[in-house]
Amino acid sequence: MKTTRIVQNILKNYEGETPGVKAKLHGMLMHGKLAGTGKMIILPVDQGFEHGPARSFAANPGGYDPHYHYRLAIDAGLNAYAAPLGMLEAGADTFAGQIPTILKANSANSLMSGTAGKNQAVTASVDDALRLGCSAVGFTIYPGSDMALDMFEEIREMRREAASKGIATVIWSYPRGEALDKDGETAIDIAAYAAQIAALLGAHIIKIKLSTDHLSLGEAKKVYEAQGIDVATQAARVRHCMQSAFDGRRIVIFSGGAKKGSDSVYDDARAIYEGGGNGSIIGRNSFQRPRADALDMLGKLVDIYRGKA
Amino acid sequence: MKTTRIVQNILKNYEGETPGVKAKLHGMLMHGKLAGTGKMIILPVDQGFEHGPARSFAANPGGYDPHYHYRLAIDAGLNAYAAPLGMLEAGADTFAGQIPTILKANSANSLMSGTAGKNQAVTASVDDALRLGCSAVGFTIYPGSDMALDMFEEIREMRREAASKGIATVIWSYPRGEALDKDGETAIDIAAYAAQIAALLGAHIIKIKLSTDHLSLGEAKKVYEAQGIDVATQAARVRHCMQSAFDGRRIVIFSGGAKKGSDSVYDDARAIYEGGGNGSIIGRNSFQRPRADALDMLGKLVDIYRGKA
Amino acid sequence: MKTTRIVQNILKNYEGETPGVKAKLHGMLMHGKLAGTGKMIILPVDQGFEHGPARSFAANPGGYDPHYHYRLAIDAGLNAYAAPLGMLEAGADTFAGQIPTILKANSANSLMSGTAGKNQAVTASVDDALRLGCSAVGFTIYPGSDMALDMFEEIREMRREAASKGIATVIWSYPRGEALDKDGETAIDIAAYAAQIAALLGAHIIKIKLSTDHLSLGEAKKVYEAQGIDVATQAARVRHCMQSAFDGRRIVIFSGGAKKGSDSVYDDARAIYEGGGNGSIIGRNSFQRPRADALDMLGKLVDIYRGKA
Amino acid sequence: MKTTRIVQNILKNYEGETPGVKAKLHGMLMHGKLAGTGKMIILPVDQGFEHGPARSFAANPGGYDPHYHYRLAIDAGLNAYAAPLGMLEAGADTFAGQIPTILKANSANSLMSGTAGKNQAVTASVDDALRLGCSAVGFTIYPGSDMALDMFEEIREMRREAASKGIATVIWSYPRGEALDKDGETAIDIAAYAAQIAALLGAHIIKIKLSTDHLSLGEAKKVYEAQGIDVATQAARVRHCMQSAFDGRRIVIFSGGAKKGSDSVYDDARAIYEGGGNGSIIGRNSFQRPRADALDMLGKLVDIYRGKA
Amino acid sequence: MKTTRIVQNILKNYEGETPGVKAKLHGMLMHGKLAGTGKMIILPVDQGFEHGPARSFAANPGGYDPHYHYRLAIDAGLNAYAAPLGMLEAGADTFAGQIPTILKANSANSLMSGTAGKNQAVTASVDDALRLGCSAVGFTIYPGSDMALDMFEEIREMRREAASKGIATVIWSYPRGEALDKDGETAIDIAAYAAQIAALLGAHIIKIKLSTDHLSLGEAKKVYEAQGIDVATQAARVRHCMQSAFDGRRIVIFSGGAKKGSDSVYDDARAIYEGGGNGSIIGRNSFQRPRADALDMLGKLVDIYRGKA
Repeated sequence: MKTTRIVQNILKNYEGETPGVKAKLHGMLMHGKLAGTGKMIILPVDQGFEHGPARSFAANPGGYDPHYHYRLAIDAGLNAYAAPLGMLEAGADTFAGQIPTILKANSANSLMSGTAGKNQAVTASVDDALRLGCSAVGFTIYPGSDMALDMFEEIREMRREAASKGIATVIWSYPRGEALDKDGETAIDIAAYAAQIAALLGAHIIKIKLSTDHLSLGEAKKVYEAQGIDVATQAARVRHCMQSAFDGRRIVIFSGGAKKGSDSVYDDARAIYEGGGNGSIIGRNSFQRPRADALDMLGKLVDIYRGKA
Repeated sequence: MKTTRIVQNILKNYEGETPGVKAKLHGMLMHGKLAGTGKMIILPVDQGFEHGPARSFAANPGGYDPHYHYRLAIDAGLNAYAAPLGMLEAGADTFAGQIPTILKANSANSLMSGTAGKNQAVTASVDDALRLGCSAVGFTIYPGSDMALDMFEEIREMRREAASKGIATVIWSYPRGEALDKDGETAIDIAAYAAQIAALLGAHIIKIKLSTDHLSLGEAKKVYEAQGIDVATQAARVRHCMQSAFDGRRIVIFSGGAKKGSDSVYDDARAIYEGGGNGSIIGRNSFQRPRADALDMLGKLVDIYRGKA
Repeated sequence: MKTTRIVQNILKNYEGETPGVKAKLHGMLMHGKLAGTGKMIILPVDQGFEHGPARSFAANPGGYDPHYHYRLAIDAGLNAYAAPLGMLEAGADTFAGQIPTILKANSANSLMSGTAGKNQAVTASVDDALRLGCSAVGFTIYPGSDMALDMFEEIREMRREAASKGIATVIWSYPRGEALDKDGETAIDIAAYAAQIAALLGAHIIKIKLSTDHLSLGEAKKVYEAQGIDVATQAARVRHCMQSAFDGRRIVIFSGGAKKGSDSVYDDARAIYEGGGNGSIIGRNSFQRPRADALDMLGKLVDIYRGKA
Repeated sequence: MKTTRIVQNILKNYEGETPGVKAKLHGMLMHGKLAGTGKMIILPVDQGFEHGPARSFAANPGGYDPHYHYRLAIDAGLNAYAAPLGMLEAGADTFAGQIPTILKANSANSLMSGTAGKNQAVTASVDDALRLGCSAVGFTIYPGSDMALDMFEEIREMRREAASKGIATVIWSYPRGEALDKDGETAIDIAAYAAQIAALLGAHIIKIKLSTDHLSLGEAKKVYEAQGIDVATQAARVRHCMQSAFDGRRIVIFSGGAKKGSDSVYDDARAIYEGGGNGSIIGRNSFQRPRADALDMLGKLVDIYRGKA
Repeated sequence: MKTTRIVQNILKNYEGETPGVKAKLHGMLMHGKLAGTGKMIILPVDQGFEHGPARSFAANPGGYDPHYHYRLAIDAGLNAYAAPLGMLEAGADTFAGQIPTILKANSANSLMSGTAGKNQAVTASVDDALRLGCSAVGFTIYPGSDMALDMFEEIREMRREAASKGIATVIWSYPRGEALDKDGETAIDIAAYAAQIAALLGAHIIKIKLSTDHLSLGEAKKVYEAQGIDVATQAARVRHCMQSAFDGRRIVIFSGGAKKGSDSVYDDARAIYEGGGNGSIIGRNSFQRPRADALDMLGKLVDIYRGKA
């Protein structure tokens, strides 16, 4: 398939970037059923690290096998598949070249006591991404954590190395930590701030969570109210987050969280589409469903992002 | 435009420095409407990192787009434009060479709990500055913070590398932290000390805040009173800060803080001019105004620094 | 002896790995009395570091001499011998090439106060492993410790270097630390999680402890019960741990802990065999017995893993 | 001027040292009015960092200008001038070669809260010293501080690099920190210990403070009393410190602290001379006086060290 | 003198080690009056760092001069002389090649408050040892300290570098810190554990203290009593420590502590000899005596280790 004007316009926003990175972004934007549309659906499977194997895979035990996820992403025609080192390696030969991969380069786990602070371990390197033929590295930051400055410095260095070696950078910008209460983690002012920080750090693709209409920071709340920023609907909030990502100059994809009903998943996608977001990153809601159901659901999401549903 | 005697005299103060750094200082001093005067106005846009996107840009939503600020700085005829990595990159091709740029290489944010200490994350490198064609790196230190020694060591190393690669160093010297109360942060003895520390660390351009006539440190207060140091007016305080920056051998520019009325901005500039300061670094007071107002205000400031207003 | 189909099938699971690593895994799987079966018994002797010399060796004083353990592993026909730097060096010339060796590259000790956190010192390097002709490096992680992220980052780097130099990586994944109580350390949900983390970190061989039917983490417990995961017998728990190690795509061996009666040791091995585990790593239960008894016991274990007892 | 036997005998004590370092020591010992005598007077100006600009320079405002101190040291015929990076750079071209310079490579400041521990920031490097044509690097250690081990490790590394590049090392050994009370900081047992530590760390020139006859450490006190070590007079204490600096095999110079009457300054110098010390390092007592008074006073000190006053 | 069978047998235990290291061990074992016997006496002078100059040298003031100790070690016919960087350097030219030297590469001091933890500063490097012609580096570890893991990692790295450059490693294994009470520091179970840890870390020569018959760790005590390990006499305890050092495959030398009567020193040496230890490291008991007395005493110790007294 030839490149499209939509994709070319997206790439133009990545000024000053290496051709290698642009080629990798092009590769992901031109892969699968959404190729050429400027929209993306990515399958991420790092829940084994984050929540443990049983909580992640027992509901649909095929998922214990790393090959399952490669196949699901390929068969559903997604744009890319993201996972930690061991997970990607376990199918690296079998599926080489069949789908763009994103090496999730840091990971948290559910076995930390609270006292060690909100942080993740860096568990892979840019050279691992090169060796495994990945298109991008993925890296989580926790704006709001006392460890955030360290995480920003880690991704600065990894992003620099990755770009110089022609690898794109995806930042999972997840507000969390000492500065935030539970409502704050999903508040719209915080989500927009998280998108802005990722953009300022040089992310090529930004992954944030869908947000609520809660406003968390006092100083911010005053401004939202004074300026009448529309955060009433999910679509409006997506639009505000796109604005906060350099007025749409960066690709932003949204995640949906724990497994839920498909209608709810579709509603999310429609809001993302309506608000001008670039797509979904959808893990548990795909691989915890039986394979047939997951393929159905992903097919429906493709239709939504093609403006057909 | 040919170089001027004023600029040449300023450059002579940078003894022992590389020609590369002198050329970059020359470039900034000879750019825009203040070219050749020895005065500077710089547009800094790092508030998206420090305060979040809505608090920074909602008042004048054009500012969500990084291109807006490049254009504002160019059209207003300023000497330079300063911003973090992602912000500069987003216009790096479009505006290449049209205005000297300063890569703000570290950043704080409003999402840190108090317990992690006053610090910033280093979010860019000297090689990023080279790659993006910047004239200088900008770096904030927090004299008064328990993290200050670390920050001093970070900028020592970055300055060394930058100078050896022909990049100038701008230090934002902002007193803050465990050793200071709120009044202390803007006290004149602290401001002068902040200028001195930046100069001793080898800054080529020093950015400090305008100060009050408050005296914060007990030992210092005794000396100010015994020696009768004049700190009664803003102009006198600017003069004392210039003295504290190697008796005027270093370029010092002053920032004005949150958005306020234009008369107040002009008063500040007149005090800086009268006290022998080198100029203003003016962010929120420019980009949070409608573009036309901002251009008017910046034009008036140029006139003040040219001694015409 | 020629390679076997069983071993070749195991090696196929190590996708994307260097031929050097595969050759080392092949070497261990094709050595000793279990050669070619896909099963392994490894002798580990790091208890001198962990518990001190008298607790480790006084019961069978021949063990004070490092040569004793090389000879025991060789004469019993085991697959490999694992020990810390000094221990391996002390017989490195005498026994060069006679048995695959694993350099245990980090170690804890019983002389730490609780306040320093659960951690180990890295006491050897990949280059030591190369110099001493080792097949693998061994590294302990403590999922559950506040130091776990640091340990994950250490083994990420050591594993990367080792693989690039053709050395395999064995991870001892031992849950321990602030996030776990005593029962949690041996709970089945934690054991499975420990296996998963080691696999995600890129371990080629995973060493975990046999577990109990206790469920430690509340969120996990709900899933185990809702999905009816069978953890009633030791064999079922071994099977669940193999599943959690990429559905059996990684070699997992099990340790038995403090010295106990031989019947108990045999029962453990039968459960491992029945549950599809790859074998035993058996230290104190071998070298704290008189040599003749140990050889008898190890011979019996070989029979169990060959399916003959 | 040709070298002297006194200087040659001093150099012989620097066994195993590089010719480059010996040449730099020779250069300082053969410069100025004390050339060839084995005695030294050094002007240090790091008080702007330590106490701030007003407390340092307001009493004699010429001192705000870095050139002032170069000229004062040159005109007074001193052996060397020591200052932090920015200060030295600001006159590096104008005064190149006219007086040996010592780059003060770490600095404290008065803007730290107590909670961050007694430490200094390393603000310059050996390569800065080479670039600026310096004879030595100067480095402060705080024996008695909880950060002392780190400081010792920093100067070990800097000294090693400096010596290998032909740059001498001056250690400011200033007891301070959690292990010492106010009297302890100037106690003779502590001063002698400070000299010993600097010597053991490989200092070529040791700077300590003049001490009192107080004995601070209990175990030391017993020995001083049992052995009848003479610490009754300043000269005796200087002698004991020289003994503690490898029995006089290392150059030791003494500082006098805050500004005071000239008679007191002369008394100090006579005690140093009588006790066999190598000289004075004299900052505030010179540059806080009017230039003419300072030159008079420094001339008188030269006479004392020449044995003529 | 030609090499001896005893020395050759000792060297055979250093399997897998570089010829450079073996040559250095050979050099120390073949030097002085105990040459060829497999026994060693080493003079260590690091007390100036540990206790300060007066406590170390006032009793015999010749010792303030670093040359004194070189001469004492040479004239007494000892195997080696060990001291920190500055101390060795101060006689490095004068005594070059006259006696094997050991560069003590880390040091503690008596000026630390308790809060900073039990640790030492690394004050010299392997390259310093090469430059000064040393045979070995000496390094202290504190098993029992919260800093022990860090110290183990430091010596791992230094040992690796030293061995690769043909320099031997001596580990001072001194139990100390948060995990131990005063009696524990000299308990026999702890001493044996200390020897074991040093051996496992790859020490070529192990220095431990003579111990008491106290048993410190509860788990260890049970084993000592159950197995009837003989710790009743000093000779039996030395024998147990040799056993704990790879059954005698490593050279172990013993220190005696503070100055005491010569009879007591001789008793210690006889116990070391009888228990199969390799010798003494004897500091304060030699250099705090008048030189003639010290030479007499050291001569008598030589006789004891030659089996003649």
